[in-house]
Amino acid sequence: MKNVEAAVEFTRKNRARFVEELKALLRIPSISTLPEHAKDVRAAAEFVAAELRRIGMENVRLIETATAKRPGGHPLVYADWLHAEGKPAVLCYGHYDVQPAEPLDEWKSPPFEPAERDGNLYARGAVDDKGQMWMHVKALESLMVAGGGKLPVNARVIVEGEEEVGGEGIAAFVRQHGDQLKADVALVSDTEMFAPELPTLCVGLRGMIYTEIEARGARTDLHSGMYGGAAPNPFVALAQVIAKLKDEDGKILIPGFYDKVERPTDAELKTWKALPFDEEHYRETEVGSVSLTGEPGLSVLERTWARPTLDVHGMPGGFIGAGAKTVIPAKAVAKVSMRLVPDMTPAESFAKYKAYVESLTPKGIVLEVRLIHSGDPIVVSTDNQYVKAATEAMHAVFGKETVFVRGGGSIPIVGDFVRELKTPTVMMGFGLPDDNLHAPNEKFHLANFYRGIESIVRFLSGVGV
Amino acid sequence: MKNVEAAVEFTRKNRARFVEELKALLRIPSISTLPEHAKDVRAAAEFVAAELRRIGMENVRLIETATAKRPGGHPLVYADWLHAEGKPAVLCYGHYDVQPAEPLDEWKSPPFEPAERDGNLYARGAVDDKGQMWMHVKALESLMVAGGGKLPVNARVIVEGEEEVGGEGIAAFVRQHGDQLKADVALVSDTEMFAPELPTLCVGLRGMIYTEIEARGARTDLHSGMYGGAAPNPFVALAQVIAKLKDEDGKILIPGFYDKVERPTDAELKTWKALPFDEEHYRETEVGSVSLTGEPGLSVLERTWARPTLDVHGMPGGFIGAGAKTVIPAKAVAKVSMRLVPDMTPAESFAKYKAYVESLTPKGIVLEVRLIHSGDPIVVSTDNQYVKAATEAMHAVFGKETVFVRGGGSIPIVGDFVRELKTPTVMMGFGLPDDNLHAPNEKFHLANFYRGIESIVRFLSGVGV
Repeated sequence: MKNVEAAVEFTRKNRARFVEELKALLRIPSISTLPEHAKDVRAAAEFVAAELRRIGMENVRLIETATAKRPGGHPLVYADWLHAEGKPAVLCYGHYDVQPAEPLDEWKSPPFEPAERDGNLYARGAVDDKGQMWMHVKALESLMVAGGGKLPVNARVIVEGEEEVGGEGIAAFVRQHGDQLKADVALVSDTEMFAPELPTLCVGLRGMIYTEIEARGARTDLHSGMYGGAAPNPFVALAQVIAKLKDEDGKILIPGFYDKVERPTDAELKTWKALPFDEEHYRETEVGSVSLTGEPGLSVLERTWARPTLDVHGMPGGFIGAGAKTVIPAKAVAKVSMRLVPDMTPAESFAKYKAYVESLTPKGIVLEVRLIHSGDPIVVSTDNQYVKAATEAMHAVFGKETVFVRGGGSIPIVGDFVRELKTPTVMMGFGLPDDNLHAPNEKFHLANFYRGIESIVRFLSGVGV
Repeated sequence: MKNVEAAVEFTRKNRARFVEELKALLRIPSISTLPEHAKDVRAAAEFVAAELRRIGMENVRLIETATAKRPGGHPLVYADWLHAEGKPAVLCYGHYDVQPAEPLDEWKSPPFEPAERDGNLYARGAVDDKGQMWMHVKALESLMVAGGGKLPVNARVIVEGEEEVGGEGIAAFVRQHGDQLKADVALVSDTEMFAPELPTLCVGLRGMIYTEIEARGARTDLHSGMYGGAAPNPFVALAQVIAKLKDEDGKILIPGFYDKVERPTDAELKTWKALPFDEEHYRETEVGSVSLTGEPGLSVLERTWARPTLDVHGMPGGFIGAGAKTVIPAKAVAKVSMRLVPDMTPAESFAKYKAYVESLTPKGIVLEVRLIHSGDPIVVSTDNQYVKAATEAMHAVFGKETVFVRGGGSIPIVGDFVRELKTPTVMMGFGLPDDNLHAPNEKFHLANFYRGIESIVRFLSGVGV
């Protein structure tokens, strides 16, 4: 245990440096969905690989995921250290890619110029997931230094660059070369704490299907004065379709969509009720809308953690400039995604959705329904030694019992780890509910960055005991 | 009558020059809705003024419409020649501004580089309305030359630069300084012929209201994984609202919206039935959709000329890039316009629309309904000497009887002429149904450019007899 305390001491002495390194990584606009940022995405991968090499990890390399079929694929970063004989192996997962930063004018400081304010570090990717991934790297460094070049556990590191675009590359790698990631437990830090002082493990995630519906009407754009009343309007058509996808309370109307939905156990629902959560406070401080929406009779936590939902993210097409253009566009698109919960599957859910949307095709319109990407929903077991090691590690840092929650978002790879590698996953995240993930002014609370590193140091040591 | 034939002869000898001049005007991208083109709009105004001056018109000047409240106003071009004692005065109206040219990649030749192909002149504004306005100027020039510096009629010319953005400037000028435009008849060439060889007068136009509905939900953009199921979605909300604005057949559901709609007379409907028009051919060649839409039981001509309609032109907001972004946007906008027919008024129609939209406000959403611009619908009388002069002029050029039709689009100024100036209007246009107004590959059939100039020469001479 001496090494653990030395490693913790090392993390404390090096906090300022750790933050400066993270800032350098955050300055790289590694936006995986935008082809024009492909070079930045690669630069971020190389940045991570270089640091893994420097701290003493072995077999550090970029694994290409681009193929003829997927030329835009971004590389995986791999590293390992496997000399702790008789000890378990931990697979540390994170991602170095980020979401687009738009709308830019709502950022108080530029998204790719990290800025510290009030104990927070503001930047796109600060918490999702560069900052949390960096905790892993820094915990490994601290243990390596304290152990004189040795870790108390076997460790593999895999960091992907396509998490924000569906993670196809890593999914394919896990399917084809899963043996190269063989481990006893996976550690994922891409989730959040339920409240600032509350150590939290995430034990369930929603899956998703992200789709586009393209509506085509006339052959070319037409003038609404001359053709209004005869030519089909793709936006009106999409509105008619979308209005039938869920009712005004938020219940999804796709036939059979809820068939496989498992409600949480009574015990789990009881635990959630005990969490420090006030729906009105949440509405006012986090959402800021005049009221919340969603299925009546279910709590916000159940609705956002354990119920499927459907959202529209944008509707490209037509005229979106200032002022007026009286065009009936030839086509329009709706970007529609659905969140899935156990035991729904992306394939079956998409098939039901597609068939239903097509059955709604308005007059004069041709619809095309496309799947952009998908991820499985998961629930992980809490009854194993790794969860015990995680709760003990966080107890030492926070002095409190860990709460078990679920997350509303997807981390597709966790599903792959469970399904393909049969590796149980510990989702130990240190984000906060107001960290503005995927939104302007994303931040990471620096106190949690530090506590996260310490918790991971203790977890990696504890797993090996 | 000798001068008329001399003037016609002059138009024929100078066709090539007339086309070259028009091309020079078409090269100026005078897109009135885009602030970055304000200088081009002014350059087009100056081009027109210079030519009016050159051909011998008097009192040529730009009339500023920009005010502190409307800083983006584009100038009117005015000219007159008022020395034909005892003769009536004709007010020639046109506009020198054009629609945006997007989508640029669908143009076969660049929109602001006029190109002749197969007897057509292709460019943004070729027919709407630079080419048709230029017919007026060239008819006046021809008469002036043939008359040795004298016209056979009193003439005023007013050319605006805001027709495509609602024509607020000229409307205000007509209201405040209508006496400066005093005339016995207005001549407007901004409409089309029903078929290539069919001389046509337009005797009715739909009006319009162009609006925006802004839907606001959460305070900032949110992540659909974390907040889906609790945060309101502005696009879903707009879809729900739009789906209730008209039914699936195209009938508008705004309460009372049809109250003031006058059906065409039986005589008018009978005339329309006799026109060479095949709905299936129109669907296939002009619209190109799998089927047409619109109120059942009414012909396409009635639906597009004499019925109110509602269209959505674009839905700005959210994520419209390639790929996936799982954002619940804080706000989204729908650009929605309605065409109006006699005796609807823009003010009353907008009030009914706004009240209805607001009554549909979905849960968790705040809606704002804005009027961007509007124009009155009109029907003009056919029973006067000016219409007789027009039909005789076109008979001499085409050798055929004129058909009376209506137009589906708006020319707001015609309503102002009728209402404010009590001036009857002759809408003698030479566009064709496939001229691609407001769309890529806009064109003007050059034979009609020539026949239009001759018809206007004969009309201006005939009015004075």
